[in-house]
Amino acid sequence: MPDETNVIFDTIAIVGVGLIGGSLGMAAKKHGLARRIIGIGRSEQNLMKAKILGAIDDYSLDIETGAAEADLVVICTPVQLIVPVLERMVKNLKRGVVVTDVGSTKAEVVTGATAIMPYGCTFIGGHPMAGSEQNGVEAAFPDLFLKATYVLTPNEETDIESFGKMAALVDAIGARLVTMDPDQHDASAAIISHLPHALSASLLHLAEQSHRKHGQVFNMAAGSFRDLTRISDSDPALWRDICLTNAGNLCEAIDEFQFLLEEFKSALKSHDEQAIFELFERARDTRKTYLRIAK
Amino acid sequence: MPDETNVIFDTIAIVGVGLIGGSLGMAAKKHGLARRIIGIGRSEQNLMKAKILGAIDDYSLDIETGAAEADLVVICTPVQLIVPVLERMVKNLKRGVVVTDVGSTKAEVVTGATAIMPYGCTFIGGHPMAGSEQNGVEAAFPDLFLKATYVLTPNEETDIESFGKMAALVDAIGARLVTMDPDQHDASAAIISHLPHALSASLLHLAEQSHRKHGQVFNMAAGSFRDLTRISDSDPALWRDICLTNAGNLCEAIDEFQFLLEEFKSALKSHDEQAIFELFERARDTRKTYLRIAK
Repeated sequence: MPDETNVIFDTIAIVGVGLIGGSLGMAAKKHGLARRIIGIGRSEQNLMKAKILGAIDDYSLDIETGAAEADLVVICTPVQLIVPVLERMVKNLKRGVVVTDVGSTKAEVVTGATAIMPYGCTFIGGHPMAGSEQNGVEAAFPDLFLKATYVLTPNEETDIESFGKMAALVDAIGARLVTMDPDQHDASAAIISHLPHALSASLLHLAEQSHRKHGQVFNMAAGSFRDLTRISDSDPALWRDICLTNAGNLCEAIDEFQFLLEEFKSALKSHDEQAIFELFERARDTRKTYLRIAK
Repeated sequence: MPDETNVIFDTIAIVGVGLIGGSLGMAAKKHGLARRIIGIGRSEQNLMKAKILGAIDDYSLDIETGAAEADLVVICTPVQLIVPVLERMVKNLKRGVVVTDVGSTKAEVVTGATAIMPYGCTFIGGHPMAGSEQNGVEAAFPDLFLKATYVLTPNEETDIESFGKMAALVDAIGARLVTMDPDQHDASAAIISHLPHALSASLLHLAEQSHRKHGQVFNMAAGSFRDLTRISDSDPALWRDICLTNAGNLCEAIDEFQFLLEEFKSALKSHDEQAIFELFERARDTRKTYLRIAK
């Protein structure tokens, strides 16, 4: 018999059992956080795989009713499907249920989801900042969230008991809880995560244009180019959706980045040794600060 | 007695025995490419250390005459000192000597150095694309150049025998020789190496500004931010000099990069799903191509 003192939610339903959903199921089982974990999805083959891998106890192909017994529903679909999926589930949810998601952008999702939640049910936006270059439940493992930042975005209406349970779950799977409001999350994510993907893609395009014209550009690529473009080995559809659900913040981040590039260019053109030195020096110092904070 | 069949240059002088110079000395000794290696520099302490570590056989503090017996002189000073240092050495160099450098930019150096080389002596610009985040002879090791790209920039006047010897040396230390003209090298390096440093620094500044305003930005930093900013852990003076000796090409690369960012922003603003998907998809494909080429 498993130790039941750790149980936070009796039944957890995970909608979309891929890398994140599967790892969450495994982590919940490893730490005994639920009595039963139900996987919900469209592909029976995938759900069977998830069950064999130990990510879920049982599964359902019925989006409408599959989560009817759940005390926690975690929606792990692509970001633009979160609200539509919730819409289909909502009339069969249990009173007192907590619903959360793992989408990479929060404002659109939280606004849309909150608007359709029935009375007595709570939606709390979530974003575990872990693993994105691999996908599929085959890549799932219970320690994916260990030391990862896990953002929750409660608001003034969020039921405090529900939030406490979600916070306990985040803590129990080994993640570091950060609480933010959805807009602040999205503005920060635009800079720290979405802009980097735009930069990496643009750098690859520039290098490709030049390589096609002159040849040999890629032959010169060393560690710096490899590091800066590693994240472009990601799912294009995933990143299209993330960028489009955060377009306003991302455009603003690009504008500010363009301004900084202009400043750098001006310093180069006027041969301003001091300014360029300070730019690189300050960047190095900032990196040290960030690594201390992110530890 | 060492096997002398591998000797390419009887005596090699290395000016500035740090990570690159020291590793070059160690590699030359490991493969028996020279009978004698002389280190030249300003700090006796550093040169003694280099000797103890096996990077050089002997040393001299005299820039003017220290390389008088050398058949190959490798100038490993910061990039803006290469021509001034060569100027001080040039009247005491042996007839037939080959002089090369390891600077990260080539056009300014090659033009300046070629102009002052005496009749019968050859300057061949060089740029081994290996190791830059650590420095000092303490970090040197003989296999630093293994599989690294080593660019040489000969021109029409380059003595063919001298070039053959340099090519043999590059090959013998395990590097992959790429021949380019200096301008093409600098234009390519601007994109593949110097621009990434500007992007990394600018991204850190943007994140810092935002963190100072809103807090918690750095708490959200995951793998993508870490990857993109890793190269900012570099010597600011080194990167100031590299950028300033390649200002024209770097400004051009920034212009082109900004144009690509503008395109991305337009696609975001007009919610052009297809364009954004293709951008990320093409980036992923390009990365695969580049990894195949750079292998």
